[in-house]
Amino acid sequence: MAFNDLLLRTINGEKTERPPVWFMRQAGRYMEEYRAIRKKVSFLELCKTPDLCTEVTLQPIEAFGFDNAILFSDILIPIEPMGIQLDFNPAPVIANPIRTMADADKLRELDPEKDVPFVMETVRKLVKALDVPLIGFSGAPFTLACYMVEGSGSKNFENIKTLIHTDPETYRIMMEKLTSSTLKYLQAQIDNGAHVVQMFDTWAGVVSPYDYEKYIFPYVEHIANNLKGAPLIYFAKDSFSFYDTIGKLNCAGMGVDWKATLKDADERLSKGKFVLQGNFDPVLLFGSKEAIKETAEKIIAEGKDLKGHIFNLGHGILPPTPRENVEYLVKIVKGEA
Amino acid sequence: MAFNDLLLRTINGEKTERPPVWFMRQAGRYMEEYRAIRKKVSFLELCKTPDLCTEVTLQPIEAFGFDNAILFSDILIPIEPMGIQLDFNPAPVIANPIRTMADADKLRELDPEKDVPFVMETVRKLVKALDVPLIGFSGAPFTLACYMVEGSGSKNFENIKTLIHTDPETYRIMMEKLTSSTLKYLQAQIDNGAHVVQMFDTWAGVVSPYDYEKYIFPYVEHIANNLKGAPLIYFAKDSFSFYDTIGKLNCAGMGVDWKATLKDADERLSKGKFVLQGNFDPVLLFGSKEAIKETAEKIIAEGKDLKGHIFNLGHGILPPTPRENVEYLVKIVKGEA
Repeated sequence: MAFNDLLLRTINGEKTERPPVWFMRQAGRYMEEYRAIRKKVSFLELCKTPDLCTEVTLQPIEAFGFDNAILFSDILIPIEPMGIQLDFNPAPVIANPIRTMADADKLRELDPEKDVPFVMETVRKLVKALDVPLIGFSGAPFTLACYMVEGSGSKNFENIKTLIHTDPETYRIMMEKLTSSTLKYLQAQIDNGAHVVQMFDTWAGVVSPYDYEKYIFPYVEHIANNLKGAPLIYFAKDSFSFYDTIGKLNCAGMGVDWKATLKDADERLSKGKFVLQGNFDPVLLFGSKEAIKETAEKIIAEGKDLKGHIFNLGHGILPPTPRENVEYLVKIVKGEA
Repeated sequence: MAFNDLLLRTINGEKTERPPVWFMRQAGRYMEEYRAIRKKVSFLELCKTPDLCTEVTLQPIEAFGFDNAILFSDILIPIEPMGIQLDFNPAPVIANPIRTMADADKLRELDPEKDVPFVMETVRKLVKALDVPLIGFSGAPFTLACYMVEGSGSKNFENIKTLIHTDPETYRIMMEKLTSSTLKYLQAQIDNGAHVVQMFDTWAGVVSPYDYEKYIFPYVEHIANNLKGAPLIYFAKDSFSFYDTIGKLNCAGMGVDWKATLKDADERLSKGKFVLQGNFDPVLLFGSKEAIKETAEKIIAEGKDLKGHIFNLGHGILPPTPRENVEYLVKIVKGEA
């Protein structure tokens, strides 16, 4: 089969016949094929076994015909070799959260080829196996820092905000190590063949605009300015109010959650500067076919006025999502339903 | 003592000497005096006992000199007499969530004087006891519907979104009952003496802009258009991306969470139309004095360019908040620190 380069043409700013389509967490628990593998291995074992990672990455491409793959892994994988004791129960739990300067001093910077060779091997295997582009990914420094400092999921992010506002120097040291590690990690994925990389800033949206600009954005900017050889998509969830700042970023694509229209997102970011990716509410996949089609068509129509549009969900697909609705939504985007 | 009318002058659009200041959940667990009362009664008992409600409502006025009181109650109190079996463990849990047309049909509309006489008695007692204005409040219809349908807190709001997108008629019937009940409930508080009312739309921000406009806003609009005798403040959390729609609302004040600057909020709503209330991140009260002052001063400075500004947190104060930082922040707003 010929290589499907629709994603690459779109992210490079070419006008394309239709938006490419993929879903965040497209390889995951909503698929029976994935659950069958997870019965045999834990989540962390799966992430560390290139053959299995390759297999689950391919599953949704074969099942639904998505226009690209995304590396199967977890954003927290690279923080383990930095010195963080990580477990999934099933939510991530960290035994040694970062709270003091001594904790931050002990963090070591990531050496991707040495520390996470299984990720690089997976990238190489995938690039060989796929006839669609591969997206590599990482967490963004602040989002990784949230996990490191909170030690688990958080409702109010008290620990990280308190750290920023009582001990900014410890925060800075941790963020600098995370930033250089993330840059190396994404660069290594590109060097091993990833065609595009995405950086997930899932928790960027918990702070004020003042704090986003001062304590989050400069680190993202450093990565965007220094990454070489493949387009970057930055995805800051719940961050529409920061899009005036985010619009200054030097990258090709922006992920948009389902909270703003693509039109409003484009205008607030910097009209026409970015290819936008999004932004179907993943929970609407529980709706009726009519409701799915109505919203998908609104999004596709707004996408036509952008520099470029990659159709995606506004966040990861949820485990109980009905498979037939995934099939249906992909067909709508492809003009087949 | 003379009546402190600073809040009333501000919400009515007069230029005032400084912003009035109050905090969402200012009567609550962060205060020792409040915890002493809660040792003796459950949360629901407290909400249903006018003498105790009056006492805890007054506590923060006496302790910190806030410029107004807010009725002590919970947004879910009026849904119990509508037919919802409600408990707090300590988060709200509902034994009979609304999922079908039969469930929605069974809901009865609220008759505030009959169904929640203890709230009205509390309002009357407070108006007599206070030398500052009293803010009454309610949940907004969609936020109440979220609790009714989800049955508890929710991460993804799957049940209510699925209801909207598979059975919009059941959703409509529930929302119409909630809307007329909320209108009556707020009107009764005004008729019993509340000087201002606030409607909390805590969960408005979970949907897409398309769904906010179609399934949430019209009900809010109906209430705003029909409420008489006191200014209304609408507070939709996490909703900056909907402010273009929200800006059409016919009301005096808008609550703003900490996610957007007051300047950006004002511009996106409808420049100069509303008095804005907010928007200090409650978690920053765990920060250093310097950090608290820096952010507070930015907010106060932005507030000066608005039609009017009521200083508040961007969401409720958290139980572990250090009392001295509350005192300090109030003093900053009053120009005493």
